[in-house]
Amino acid sequence: MAFHNALKGQIDPFIVMDVMRAANERAAAGGDVLHLEVGQPSGQAPARVLDAARSALSSHALGYTDALGLPSLRERISGHYRQTYGVAVAPERIAVTTGSSGAFVLAFLAAFPKGARVAVAAPGYPAYRNILTALGIECVPVAVGEQSRWQLTVPILESVPGRLDGVVVASPSNPTGSMLSAAELAELAVWCETNQVRLVSDEIYHGITYEGAAASAAGIAPHALIVNSFSKYYAMTGWRLGWMVVPTDLAREVECLQQNLFISPPTLSQLAAEAVFDCTDELDARVATYRVNRDILREELPKAGFNRLAPSDGAFYLYADLAELTNDSPEFCKRMLAETGVAVTPGTDFDPFHGSRTLRFSFAGATADMVEAAKRLKSWRR
Amino acid sequence: MAFHNALKGQIDPFIVMDVMRAANERAAAGGDVLHLEVGQPSGQAPARVLDAARSALSSHALGYTDALGLPSLRERISGHYRQTYGVAVAPERIAVTTGSSGAFVLAFLAAFPKGARVAVAAPGYPAYRNILTALGIECVPVAVGEQSRWQLTVPILESVPGRLDGVVVASPSNPTGSMLSAAELAELAVWCETNQVRLVSDEIYHGITYEGAAASAAGIAPHALIVNSFSKYYAMTGWRLGWMVVPTDLAREVECLQQNLFISPPTLSQLAAEAVFDCTDELDARVATYRVNRDILREELPKAGFNRLAPSDGAFYLYADLAELTNDSPEFCKRMLAETGVAVTPGTDFDPFHGSRTLRFSFAGATADMVEAAKRLKSWRR
Repeated sequence: MAFHNALKGQIDPFIVMDVMRAANERAAAGGDVLHLEVGQPSGQAPARVLDAARSALSSHALGYTDALGLPSLRERISGHYRQTYGVAVAPERIAVTTGSSGAFVLAFLAAFPKGARVAVAAPGYPAYRNILTALGIECVPVAVGEQSRWQLTVPILESVPGRLDGVVVASPSNPTGSMLSAAELAELAVWCETNQVRLVSDEIYHGITYEGAAASAAGIAPHALIVNSFSKYYAMTGWRLGWMVVPTDLAREVECLQQNLFISPPTLSQLAAEAVFDCTDELDARVATYRVNRDILREELPKAGFNRLAPSDGAFYLYADLAELTNDSPEFCKRMLAETGVAVTPGTDFDPFHGSRTLRFSFAGATADMVEAAKRLKSWRR
Repeated sequence: MAFHNALKGQIDPFIVMDVMRAANERAAAGGDVLHLEVGQPSGQAPARVLDAARSALSSHALGYTDALGLPSLRERISGHYRQTYGVAVAPERIAVTTGSSGAFVLAFLAAFPKGARVAVAAPGYPAYRNILTALGIECVPVAVGEQSRWQLTVPILESVPGRLDGVVVASPSNPTGSMLSAAELAELAVWCETNQVRLVSDEIYHGITYEGAAASAAGIAPHALIVNSFSKYYAMTGWRLGWMVVPTDLAREVECLQQNLFISPPTLSQLAAEAVFDCTDELDARVATYRVNRDILREELPKAGFNRLAPSDGAFYLYADLAELTNDSPEFCKRMLAETGVAVTPGTDFDPFHGSRTLRFSFAGATADMVEAAKRLKSWRR
């Protein structure tokens, strides 16, 4: 016998976190870095959020909350569904979570037994695959591309061999920024309900859209788990707060899991987050900046040889095909960081099939950084 | 086929969270409640922590940190091992986590494959059992009692039928407050190292001790996972921050898991936590209050019929045997809350064998609440 290492070689790193560390080390050593790697808004949370946090620091004991979150925050999130999507979601169905990460852990544990098979789009968010694998659930990556605008569709799912127990969709998608139309999402939801396939709808980039609002699975898929986050549109990244709409048949299990695995989400973050729903003007101004950033990169990156870019209808990413530039994206990105100071994420984080010839630019940072990055990359590739 | 409910009936609630919710509902309805149920310090975090948080709100973007935490905080925790235990623990071995809860999830996933068998003391912290079960790892509850001062020992472990892959020990223990001596912990550590059984040492109540300091597994068990928290001695409960000393052979797996399951721990909490190591005077004053509370309850509870109490050498709990009072502790506790306003936790949360005739008092609250609770209980049981 020996000591177990239960997941040795089974869980990939979330490569972007490794890239971020390398970029931070470069910066700490005095090198300049343009952060186009991590998908997080730059700058602070909205002023009212900071004020609410200051006020809570003075007045609140900041102990545990109810496991599923402060009742007032759950009410506020319920109101958000009414206002944004015109859909009634009872506060009892809202679980406040420790980021969307915490929501995925709860969702996957509650919905999928060991050995269940869950389809995810490739390219897609790598933590789906890595969390599922860590939990003993089989992740079934399904290649998507231009033909379906980088989204899963019913015909694609029907072509997957074997029974599926679940499907994860994301609109807008990370890393491609592509979106499902309301009709496409509805078609997927109906297919999942009809076939008793559990739908997990990742809606964490809702609010950050450039070609029309995103559709929600709320109200159309009673058995779906719907995940959202305060980290993206709401710009409260390091506060580690998200939420989930929980289907009635899993409500008690999700609550018991949260009690045991998390106790409750961070209290100060919860108290501050209530204010963020009143910051729409400030948050939409950020989206306007993301649009400017997107337009700059879409204009300039092709001049640096990155001329095959996914749609980027939402989120803050441009996913570039490098077929003409390299077949080793990690090495390419490492060299880019070393030679230009521009940090980006290799596609191997997102796509087990074709990631070695793709990479992701995040344009959540400052516009000046986008301009400078484009300039350096054009000069680098000249 | 039907939709899966993967854990239906398998995961117990963390009963104390349900009790807390019932107590909060009673309070919201205008009833008065004395909170002797939840194991959390009352009042705010130390003033310097609040100041550090205020300062960070003004100066810091509060984005993601490195997955394993801010380097400066990891250094500070490393220094804590040097100062408190005289042991060198490299900062690289420190993982800052989302509470000790997050540490247990990472520890169990990294150390134990599905189906592995992990011994825990009964009575013990219920989330060990519930997290292990949720992750598909077999929890082996092992009855302990007065004979071993409510702790696991090598002879007890050797009497467990079948191979064990891991052992969780907690000193001070929740719910009994009992402690392992340095020699007993060392004996357990050697046995685990010799038999390639992974030791998980829960040290979250270190610092809250009344009969001598607690011994750490740091420095004596190179393969152990050592879990600690900012929620108890450090009084930063709702900040959701803890840490883990990770053995070298699991370091990369723990980092990859953290990246994918949590991204990084709450940033504001990390920035504020660095200040808490300079608050020893204030924190020790809290421990002095806990001692006063303990002495009041140990004096008064027997007069209310609770005359068989576990040692309470550390932590802030008194675990009472109810054999002469009831064989249905949940009903008993519910009635106590309804008739006296004193909220406590039934032993069923902690002990699958004998919990129906035990309960746990937490004395982390205000001394006045302890006095009043004792008065009400004496009058109730008269």
